[in-house]
Amino acid sequence: MKNNNINRNVKVVTLEKAIRNTGLKDGMTISFHHHFRGGDKVLNLVVDKLAEMGFKNLHVAASSLSDVHEPLIKHIENGVVTQLSTSGLRGELARRISHGLMEKPVIFRSHGYRGTAIATGELHIDVAFLGASSCDPAGNACGFSRSENAKSICGSLGYALPDARYADKVVILTDDLVAYPNTPNAISEHDVDYVVEVESVGDSSKIASGAIRDTKNPRDILLAKQAAKVILASGYFKDGFSIQTGTGGASLAVVKYIRERMIQDGIKASFALGGITAHMVKMHEEGLIDRLIDVQSFDRVAAESLMHDPMHKEVSANEYAAGDETGSATHYLDIVILSALEVDVNFNVNVLVGSDGIIRGAIGGHQDTAADSALSIIVCPLLRGRIPCVVDKVTTLITPGKSVDVVVTEYGIGVNPNRPELAEALKAAGLNIVSMEYLRDRAKKVIGEAAPLPFGDKVVGVVMNRDGSVLDEIKNIVED
Amino acid sequence: MKNNNINRNVKVVTLEKAIRNTGLKDGMTISFHHHFRGGDKVLNLVVDKLAEMGFKNLHVAASSLSDVHEPLIKHIENGVVTQLSTSGLRGELARRISHGLMEKPVIFRSHGYRGTAIATGELHIDVAFLGASSCDPAGNACGFSRSENAKSICGSLGYALPDARYADKVVILTDDLVAYPNTPNAISEHDVDYVVEVESVGDSSKIASGAIRDTKNPRDILLAKQAAKVILASGYFKDGFSIQTGTGGASLAVVKYIRERMIQDGIKASFALGGITAHMVKMHEEGLIDRLIDVQSFDRVAAESLMHDPMHKEVSANEYAAGDETGSATHYLDIVILSALEVDVNFNVNVLVGSDGIIRGAIGGHQDTAADSALSIIVCPLLRGRIPCVVDKVTTLITPGKSVDVVVTEYGIGVNPNRPELAEALKAAGLNIVSMEYLRDRAKKVIGEAAPLPFGDKVVGVVMNRDGSVLDEIKNIVED
Repeated sequence: MKNNNINRNVKVVTLEKAIRNTGLKDGMTISFHHHFRGGDKVLNLVVDKLAEMGFKNLHVAASSLSDVHEPLIKHIENGVVTQLSTSGLRGELARRISHGLMEKPVIFRSHGYRGTAIATGELHIDVAFLGASSCDPAGNACGFSRSENAKSICGSLGYALPDARYADKVVILTDDLVAYPNTPNAISEHDVDYVVEVESVGDSSKIASGAIRDTKNPRDILLAKQAAKVILASGYFKDGFSIQTGTGGASLAVVKYIRERMIQDGIKASFALGGITAHMVKMHEEGLIDRLIDVQSFDRVAAESLMHDPMHKEVSANEYAAGDETGSATHYLDIVILSALEVDVNFNVNVLVGSDGIIRGAIGGHQDTAADSALSIIVCPLLRGRIPCVVDKVTTLITPGKSVDVVVTEYGIGVNPNRPELAEALKAAGLNIVSMEYLRDRAKKVIGEAAPLPFGDKVVGVVMNRDGSVLDEIKNIVED
Repeated sequence: MKNNNINRNVKVVTLEKAIRNTGLKDGMTISFHHHFRGGDKVLNLVVDKLAEMGFKNLHVAASSLSDVHEPLIKHIENGVVTQLSTSGLRGELARRISHGLMEKPVIFRSHGYRGTAIATGELHIDVAFLGASSCDPAGNACGFSRSENAKSICGSLGYALPDARYADKVVILTDDLVAYPNTPNAISEHDVDYVVEVESVGDSSKIASGAIRDTKNPRDILLAKQAAKVILASGYFKDGFSIQTGTGGASLAVVKYIRERMIQDGIKASFALGGITAHMVKMHEEGLIDRLIDVQSFDRVAAESLMHDPMHKEVSANEYAAGDETGSATHYLDIVILSALEVDVNFNVNVLVGSDGIIRGAIGGHQDTAADSALSIIVCPLLRGRIPCVVDKVTTLITPGKSVDVVVTEYGIGVNPNRPELAEALKAAGLNIVSMEYLRDRAKKVIGEAAPLPFGDKVVGVVMNRDGSVLDEIKNIVED
């Protein structure tokens, strides 16, 4: 018989009570995940409540931040939030921070390194506030719901798993409080302290928004086809290969163009990694990809596949891409296709800061996958409007050139000089191999020499490398 | 491109190298799981190797020990192993320990409390040696294998999961080293340091051995039918109820007898917990049990169901039964049916030490489930041969009487006086409710007064309560 008075609903409390019970204090670190991307409703809800309760000087450590988090501006102005750690920044919040809104610089980490930093204690989280599309009163939580009352779906909670495991206190916010046991689950009751029922944790229609789109842009399609040719000729396209695509339209489209050859040649992939898309799910269901390893579901089809298919596996940021773990998936990755805002003649890549000096992107898994994969391909147009994408020196260094093997543009393909055998193989396949200097000059011929950006002296952002060193600093951009 | 020289097989080493690399030293604590029960081959293999390598004074913290671990006797005699922590002991090892083989007493913990002790650091594990039926070179490991080379299957690795998470170093031993990624997996690469390929981790035909059998014993069947009647009349048999059965033949059989009424009355269980059996799997597949929560697979059918069915969930010992976690499954458990070696007039239960003073059992989840469930039923014959099972005072206290609601014997049913409403309900259903004193007297009438056991003064075992207090001590039995 029950020897104690433990109420089976004892963890279920209001948000205010959860906050009080965690012992949160001014100056502490709170964390959030971004699996709902532009549709996230948890971060603003919680920080509004914290502001209302009078908290100050908080460190918001999110797996990423985007346009939807613009309300953080007022909380920063009011001193509720004084520090940010994130993979990326977009929209008005990013613009204001680029202009010097905050006293402390934003710490930018890759997804893999965020996992490492949380596991090692470099990034100590006092209280994690994690949105979930279902949760039972014990705290077993998921990025989807099997109940009739499901209100949202985001699929994998991979970026929230380090927070759940290592934060001192964990609060789940859910818009579908289901009966125990909510299994299979992503986050275990073992790691959860409080469960808060809310009206909505996120707008699922927006998980495919932001950087992700199924491209209809003819230039993206051209780039994707070229990248596919690189893969086919690279020597890494063989039975049992593994692949990941980044979030850019062109990089996402690449898999569509290698699918035909996989069928034709009887080649199957052992796994597809990373942000999983409907394309990947389709190829998995066709038997072309054996396993899906999903740290983030990039669309609803992927999220639903994760819910139903045991061979579609949810992994933590650490299992995905931690540089200090020999077993993390990126170490087993053969091919990655990534996008870029800028690439320079030394193959360095910038995916975070626009050529106008305004932060408008995210490190994501760029650093991690480029460094660990056997073949990293950057897909990037030569110009975006009047902005050159191949430059002398990237505005901000995110992924060091030594990690980058191939740069695909519509005017030719650059191959890192430290991969001569790869350049030979691509030339032999009839691909147009050019130097990065050629591409830079070609861009300059159209646009002319760019004026230096009006950076000030204030450090507004620090870009970490995944080995724990500082890779670059972002200075404030002076008001125009 | 790969920026480091990390070999994708870098974790895969010989057992000796794994041991060396972990930094294991004399006096440290090593751990093992018992998911292969009598078929386990890992513990003996590892301890033999440690003896060969000259290690001394080791603490073996196993989730349980049984007949198959008899070779530990020589390692104890030689000083290789000087301390044991376990849930149970059986066979010659248990007999020798009962006679005073070891200087330090064996620490007995329930499965739930072992999880708690590992998580809190009370039981600090230096190196865990965990057998797995499949593992990839990164360390993703399972109690089954999806490969064509599968050699073994044990199903859930629930008792190994606390070790994997909290031990300083984790070594997986596997008899099927499969290609990365071995997903879905039970143990993550994030927690694994070394992977060792061995000829065999266990004989799967023996996972259903030991305490577990599908009873054909007429007395067990009678007891099971009586227990089923108790459940049906208890008030806890209603739609959405949850249930667990222990390992005794009678307690396992109970579900068979409530199945008919579930179908007839349209009643479905929300979950079945614990050691999962083929009976439970069948009822789950029939739609009578919504979820299976599996800390240990009690037979091959259960192990295979775990492999294929996402609604059959693997849980850690902590998620199963930790007393300090409000979210652990036992806190959501309605009904548990358990066996006993002895029950006394105060409803105290002994499942560890025989009436001859020799250790011959295991605490298992007995303490945990009895304490947390809403209705705990002990199924126990009045006599086993010439041994009375209802006694004045249990030889060793394992589960305190306050946790026990009902004792079912073939001569009547005892109901704990602190559950008068339950006694009324069972009487109203026509069940033969008797006092424990009546049952004790009835046993005495057949057997007579038992002579006191010839215990010595040496403490050979300490029985922990799941709240961290000491519940009882086991003294050595004097040689006859």
